[in-house]
Amino acid sequence: MALYVQKFGGTSVGSVERIKAVAEKVKRDRDAGHRVVVVVSAMSGETNRLIGLASQINEDPTPREMDMLVSTGEQVTISLLAMALHQLGVPATSYTGAQVGIRTDSAHTKARIQRIETDELQEDLDDGQVVVVAGFQGVDEEGNITTLGRGGSDTTGVALAAALNADECQIYTDVDGVYTTDPRVCSKAQRLERITVEEMLELASLGSKVLQIRAVEFAGKYNVPLRVLSSFEEGPGTLIVADEEFESMEEPLISGIAFTANEAKLTLLNTPDVPGVASRILGPIADANIEVDMIVQNVAPAGDYTDFTFTVAKGDYKQTMRILQNDVIPALGGGDLRGDENIAKVSLVGVGMRSHAGVASKMFRVLSEENINIRMVSTSEIKISVVIDEKAMELAVRALHTAFGLDKDSIQSE
Amino acid sequence: MALYVQKFGGTSVGSVERIKAVAEKVKRDRDAGHRVVVVVSAMSGETNRLIGLASQINEDPTPREMDMLVSTGEQVTISLLAMALHQLGVPATSYTGAQVGIRTDSAHTKARIQRIETDELQEDLDDGQVVVVAGFQGVDEEGNITTLGRGGSDTTGVALAAALNADECQIYTDVDGVYTTDPRVCSKAQRLERITVEEMLELASLGSKVLQIRAVEFAGKYNVPLRVLSSFEEGPGTLIVADEEFESMEEPLISGIAFTANEAKLTLLNTPDVPGVASRILGPIADANIEVDMIVQNVAPAGDYTDFTFTVAKGDYKQTMRILQNDVIPALGGGDLRGDENIAKVSLVGVGMRSHAGVASKMFRVLSEENINIRMVSTSEIKISVVIDEKAMELAVRALHTAFGLDKDSIQSE
Repeated sequence: MALYVQKFGGTSVGSVERIKAVAEKVKRDRDAGHRVVVVVSAMSGETNRLIGLASQINEDPTPREMDMLVSTGEQVTISLLAMALHQLGVPATSYTGAQVGIRTDSAHTKARIQRIETDELQEDLDDGQVVVVAGFQGVDEEGNITTLGRGGSDTTGVALAAALNADECQIYTDVDGVYTTDPRVCSKAQRLERITVEEMLELASLGSKVLQIRAVEFAGKYNVPLRVLSSFEEGPGTLIVADEEFESMEEPLISGIAFTANEAKLTLLNTPDVPGVASRILGPIADANIEVDMIVQNVAPAGDYTDFTFTVAKGDYKQTMRILQNDVIPALGGGDLRGDENIAKVSLVGVGMRSHAGVASKMFRVLSEENINIRMVSTSEIKISVVIDEKAMELAVRALHTAFGLDKDSIQSE
Repeated sequence: MALYVQKFGGTSVGSVERIKAVAEKVKRDRDAGHRVVVVVSAMSGETNRLIGLASQINEDPTPREMDMLVSTGEQVTISLLAMALHQLGVPATSYTGAQVGIRTDSAHTKARIQRIETDELQEDLDDGQVVVVAGFQGVDEEGNITTLGRGGSDTTGVALAAALNADECQIYTDVDGVYTTDPRVCSKAQRLERITVEEMLELASLGSKVLQIRAVEFAGKYNVPLRVLSSFEEGPGTLIVADEEFESMEEPLISGIAFTANEAKLTLLNTPDVPGVASRILGPIADANIEVDMIVQNVAPAGDYTDFTFTVAKGDYKQTMRILQNDVIPALGGGDLRGDENIAKVSLVGVGMRSHAGVASKMFRVLSEENINIRMVSTSEIKISVVIDEKAMELAVRALHTAFGLDKDSIQSE
């Protein structure tokens, strides 16, 4: 008999029929002898409906009142799911975040969980109840309703699993697991049986939007086994496990390929290489709340000029150009500005590359054989990212997917 | 500087525009120097939408989960109203029933308020905040969300006014006050400036659906001045005051005329007059959860037979007939059953009649002059009700309204 925390997102509870299907699923697991805590999001569309109402009333509502408003979304779902379980003869009790004792700080709309009081919840489980908890929300010390930020229901699930020492936190989504890359771009992409937390973090931050980054970090930190499954079809999904558990398994070289066309590249050429040049370039950009992703700096051989290149989200491109042109270049006393919006970033991710040399050179060779120019490179312990022309992105993903042995029914080539 | 508790019902907050209008209204009262606590209902239609969702999932949802579900309706409204007040520059904080400390028993869907913790609320008022409270809901000792039953927002308003010792509890509705009778039936009906709690209770229970009976009882018990006003137009509304305050004013003989066509009459003729006959007739009916309204019993001169007549809601008529026929008559050992669904009840209400003889005889005379037959009479200290043919109801109301001097621009005739 295992204890599972099962999280169902907005699409999975998006209609009366879907809620009934979730109840059937939970009943099957309970009938099989398991204890189940269910965490649910607001029905899909509901949060946007509420935000829409707010925006008609106040263009800049206070975070406290926004939390008061949007937290009703999950409260509706928990009561409906409890009713659906009752209809199937399954004893169940619903709880808001506040009721279940999810204590957070007071950072409304992006609160962080501080502790969870599991006594009452544990009592209900001992009584044979299914416990249904509103995701995404908590309560601060003063009793104000807080939310964990959009998509925070994953975090609620993992935090509850950690607090209850659950056997697995199962995240039900509209995909049946984590893939080696996006199947819409590469038809040979395949579902991974397992992946490490570290790899998942790299894949998530690179745009594989299966799971919230924060929930994965949380799972890694508290050693909660995390499983991504489909709420629409049967299947084992993908298990996300801590790094150390993975070491004992045979390591694939590369676990997945992430990519995005949502960045733009900016380069400052021939900037005087004064002390602290990097922070003097990026400081004003950070001050404008623009996030910088990849950063590459080359110093000229003579050492008195530097080329500085970085990427930002496409939406921040124009503002970043303005800041560089108007503030940074005059302050630095020179530099030529270049920009390119038509780029893509492609990244290989895998814990296996830690112990294997040659992944980078093989990646460059594969891209070169396809006549794809590399415009920028950045590496970490378990990731190599290249920036290429946007139009070559899909070709690069498919070529790398095949070359690194990720294709369905293929054998790892190295 | 007065302290007002202002309650706005579902229609008054039924849209974004209406919520903004309520915020403007609250701002005007605050700008005039008053302290304001606002109690709001769910936006009109929202509670029904939620109940509709539940009914698609479970034909008989548990009361606890229903409360969890429908209490979200007011929570949406309080946050939106707080945002609307902020938009106008008015400091405001919203609270759910649980947050504001409205403690109830655990009778879900029909909970009763036990106490209110006003400390935090009082602090906010001292800080110059407008406090916005979710009506209709509270929390029990275990932290479960409860509701006071449909329309219970009036009760929340009165209870808060009592706990805060407010100067007035102002109930904003879609009518501009309490009328002498229904203006749709009698065009000469007029708004009352004042009415006693007792009269209001008689009028409310007789079908003048301006206010919840429970809220009026509460106001009477805790001596809270209650004012009914329109949220759509300016005006003083009707003030509902405790009986003793009314005594000092010049008393009108009759305050209002209530009427309903929603009852049916049943008569048992020639029933043996055995001891306890009344309870033996009404016991089985009460057991079936059927409410009996008017009751009249005549004992035959010889004393061995009795005629027993009573009224029930039209919806309960057929079932009541069956119970009498199948259970009561055989048990009593005889009796002839008569029934009539086409009746109406017309009632004169007024504290003035306590000290005036002749109201009943005048009522009977007026009806007789209109050739209206009286089929049943029942009296209380401040009310006389007659049962007549349904088709004569409107004529009776208009004739009595004129005869008792209630018509607009008329002078009291007695």
